[in-house]
Amino acid sequence: MSEFTHFNKDGRANMVDISDKRETVRTAIAKTSVKVNSEIYKKITMQEMKKGDVLGVAQVAGIMAAKKTSDLIPMCHPIHLSGVDISFKWEKSHENYEVGITVQVKTIGSTGVEMEALTAAAATALTIYDMCKSVDKGMVIGPTYLVEKTGGKNGDYRR
Amino acid sequence: MSEFTHFNKDGRANMVDISDKRETVRTAIAKTSVKVNSEIYKKITMQEMKKGDVLGVAQVAGIMAAKKTSDLIPMCHPIHLSGVDISFKWEKSHENYEVGITVQVKTIGSTGVEMEALTAAAATALTIYDMCKSVDKGMVIGPTYLVEKTGGKNGDYRR
Amino acid sequence: MSEFTHFNKDGRANMVDISDKRETVRTAIAKTSVKVNSEIYKKITMQEMKKGDVLGVAQVAGIMAAKKTSDLIPMCHPIHLSGVDISFKWEKSHENYEVGITVQVKTIGSTGVEMEALTAAAATALTIYDMCKSVDKGMVIGPTYLVEKTGGKNGDYRR
Amino acid sequence: MSEFTHFNKDGRANMVDISDKRETVRTAIAKTSVKVNSEIYKKITMQEMKKGDVLGVAQVAGIMAAKKTSDLIPMCHPIHLSGVDISFKWEKSHENYEVGITVQVKTIGSTGVEMEALTAAAATALTIYDMCKSVDKGMVIGPTYLVEKTGGKNGDYRR
Amino acid sequence: MSEFTHFNKDGRANMVDISDKRETVRTAIAKTSVKVNSEIYKKITMQEMKKGDVLGVAQVAGIMAAKKTSDLIPMCHPIHLSGVDISFKWEKSHENYEVGITVQVKTIGSTGVEMEALTAAAATALTIYDMCKSVDKGMVIGPTYLVEKTGGKNGDYRR
Amino acid sequence: MSEFTHFNKDGRANMVDISDKRETVRTAIAKTSVKVNSEIYKKITMQEMKKGDVLGVAQVAGIMAAKKTSDLIPMCHPIHLSGVDISFKWEKSHENYEVGITVQVKTIGSTGVEMEALTAAAATALTIYDMCKSVDKGMVIGPTYLVEKTGGKNGDYRR
Repeated sequence: MSEFTHFNKDGRANMVDISDKRETVRTAIAKTSVKVNSEIYKKITMQEMKKGDVLGVAQVAGIMAAKKTSDLIPMCHPIHLSGVDISFKWEKSHENYEVGITVQVKTIGSTGVEMEALTAAAATALTIYDMCKSVDKGMVIGPTYLVEKTGGKNGDYRR
Repeated sequence: MSEFTHFNKDGRANMVDISDKRETVRTAIAKTSVKVNSEIYKKITMQEMKKGDVLGVAQVAGIMAAKKTSDLIPMCHPIHLSGVDISFKWEKSHENYEVGITVQVKTIGSTGVEMEALTAAAATALTIYDMCKSVDKGMVIGPTYLVEKTGGKNGDYRR
Repeated sequence: MSEFTHFNKDGRANMVDISDKRETVRTAIAKTSVKVNSEIYKKITMQEMKKGDVLGVAQVAGIMAAKKTSDLIPMCHPIHLSGVDISFKWEKSHENYEVGITVQVKTIGSTGVEMEALTAAAATALTIYDMCKSVDKGMVIGPTYLVEKTGGKNGDYRR
Repeated sequence: MSEFTHFNKDGRANMVDISDKRETVRTAIAKTSVKVNSEIYKKITMQEMKKGDVLGVAQVAGIMAAKKTSDLIPMCHPIHLSGVDISFKWEKSHENYEVGITVQVKTIGSTGVEMEALTAAAATALTIYDMCKSVDKGMVIGPTYLVEKTGGKNGDYRR
Repeated sequence: MSEFTHFNKDGRANMVDISDKRETVRTAIAKTSVKVNSEIYKKITMQEMKKGDVLGVAQVAGIMAAKKTSDLIPMCHPIHLSGVDISFKWEKSHENYEVGITVQVKTIGSTGVEMEALTAAAATALTIYDMCKSVDKGMVIGPTYLVEKTGGKNGDYRR
Repeated sequence: MSEFTHFNKDGRANMVDISDKRETVRTAIAKTSVKVNSEIYKKITMQEMKKGDVLGVAQVAGIMAAKKTSDLIPMCHPIHLSGVDISFKWEKSHENYEVGITVQVKTIGSTGVEMEALTAAAATALTIYDMCKSVDKGMVIGPTYLVEKTGGKNGDYRR
């Protein structure tokens, strides 16, 4: 006697087949940010944080995380990235300081790189948090979102 | 002739020595969220998303990411987690849907587990994004933040 | 004076060169199973296992393990998987319960995906064991074997 | 308005808290096997397999996999292994050849090492399959099972 | 008010875009060595080292490390290796013993494999050190260098 | 009929049991270097290398590699590092430039951290090579060696 599992066809987790997709140039841009207090702002910009050059280390962490995306996100297809670039920009108003993080990812492949850009953005922000948390644990990460993607048959996306 | 590198003592990146810290019970709670549209809300809650049971898979991704924290965050000390628990809660108002994500992490160790909780929260949210992005790429992750931590000589933190 | 190492040409471990192989569609199907007692069968199917939804978590573990195959198997070439699908089927006879696990893997590449299918099957079964072992450690995994593979110049294989 | 997720308390996947467990010496022994044809038997024992010394490579793969167990099995706690030992024994009857694999794992920790022993056994067998599959894909792995475990408050287990 | 980060265009860490590069056959050969004392030389060549067959294990470690190169070297592009081969050669003069390590790597890809060859050489040497260090910690690794590379638009390199 | 494998008791690869060893403070210092030409020296020290701040990125790579040591070196026991510090020092004579790399590692554990220090040194040097190889592939890494270790029952070591 045999009995099929309770998972129906739609509810079953799977890494969907993309072998029909064409290899094309694909890009994605994601953004996030970290809100910090004035002491952290000063220590980052004056390179006085005890753990080291915060933005320099965070950039490396973001690039390395982009390469680990399919290891972190269960249903995400592995893909070889052609390039990753991460930039920072400070926004200040009154006593509020926020470092904006922009990640650009590019590849030639058969699936998009949105997840790689978002994962790199998250890891960059988490690393900033880690290196500054001895000063203040009240930092806030994000919101984190996709700004645009290009390539693939479903067309481009712009927020 | 010899010349020291330009990195001064404070600016050098390093994984700071914690061998003097005592092993105590340590906990941390982090929160994040994913804002989705009504179609995604319906497909998640009715288990109709093509890639599988979104929240179930995201929970597994979050727990596995907690265990990889020190592999992602360069200056973060490796630590053995005793327990990780991730829960979800939907918030709805008008046509806005948001799934709240709460991660609780516990360990006995000589360093805190804030980064493990925040990293698990980020990976859980990223996995939700990945599994739903074929429906809409406009989802927004976070803000992501620490709610509380206990243990360690610096005392407890509550937001 | 010099002396060659004792490894002869045939006995030396190496990752054999596949740069002459053509990129074609390749598929593989592997099977394994886990024999459990009636208490475990009931707890899995009624979702009462303390660690969570056993088959749901095991499916995620299997898919993630497929992506790590070349990291686990020393002489296995890295390859990008296009799709992975894992399904379960219960077989019962008298007081014997067995959950059958079938893994299908697909890619476009220059080497077969037999190892990816077998590794995913093993990780899926090991995860079921892990989540149920507090009830009974007498579970038996497998036999584990390849059912079929297609693609590549050596032709198809069917058991 | 808010609404809790559909996961009930028992059905939710989590890495259960073990911070109350004591650190004690723990051991586990797992067994598996690979059934091969006579040609593979000859090539392994005479060191003529093209990919290298099959059992030597498989042993290394098994030991390395033991260290990755908590990275593969989602709800498995990370633990530092004190020692891993893997041994092989050939069984022959008529034209059937089977290499038995026995894995012994030891640690001092707050959770058992059954999963580490079983995972090492699986990886050892998968590596043998990989290195011999160019000769015959009909090899069968396992059954794979726990032979004994010692340590921990729940007492010892012997099959 | 906004202010750009201090990183100028040249100083910013990034994984440079290679999407314009063509996929061609690429090879690289790297060399290193380990200087050991006579006791270690005897124990390696007579297979008496307590941790096992030193060169056999080191070869496996080198091949597996080649596959992890882009995970270790931050700005290194991920690439699929087609083949890796590692060979050893002893050099003796008076009471000095040195095992030479040569690594050959091959792929079809859009970036060179120099880093994969050098990383494999380093991991092979480190493994020899690890397996022999209970006898003598005075072993010296290297120098480590690239011998040649072929493929890619910048032409071949030979030392 | 049964027959033991050809591996004798001494020749078998295994991760030797350390469960009898005591947890003590342990430190290790390793050194390596990278010889570069004058153009690379100028570009590194003037921050003009296209891939970014070479020594800053290399430092991060070294620290992250220290945490991956037991994943790279097959028979190496996993251990939690308490601290890692990497420093650089330029040596110049005539037209020869060499950046010296010193890695200090500390932990409380039951096994030494020599391999962690050596692995971090190797990864730091490899990253410098990677970031400068577009200028000149003739750089030479090392020699790489242990300078000292303290802790453990076998006493301290100083070169």
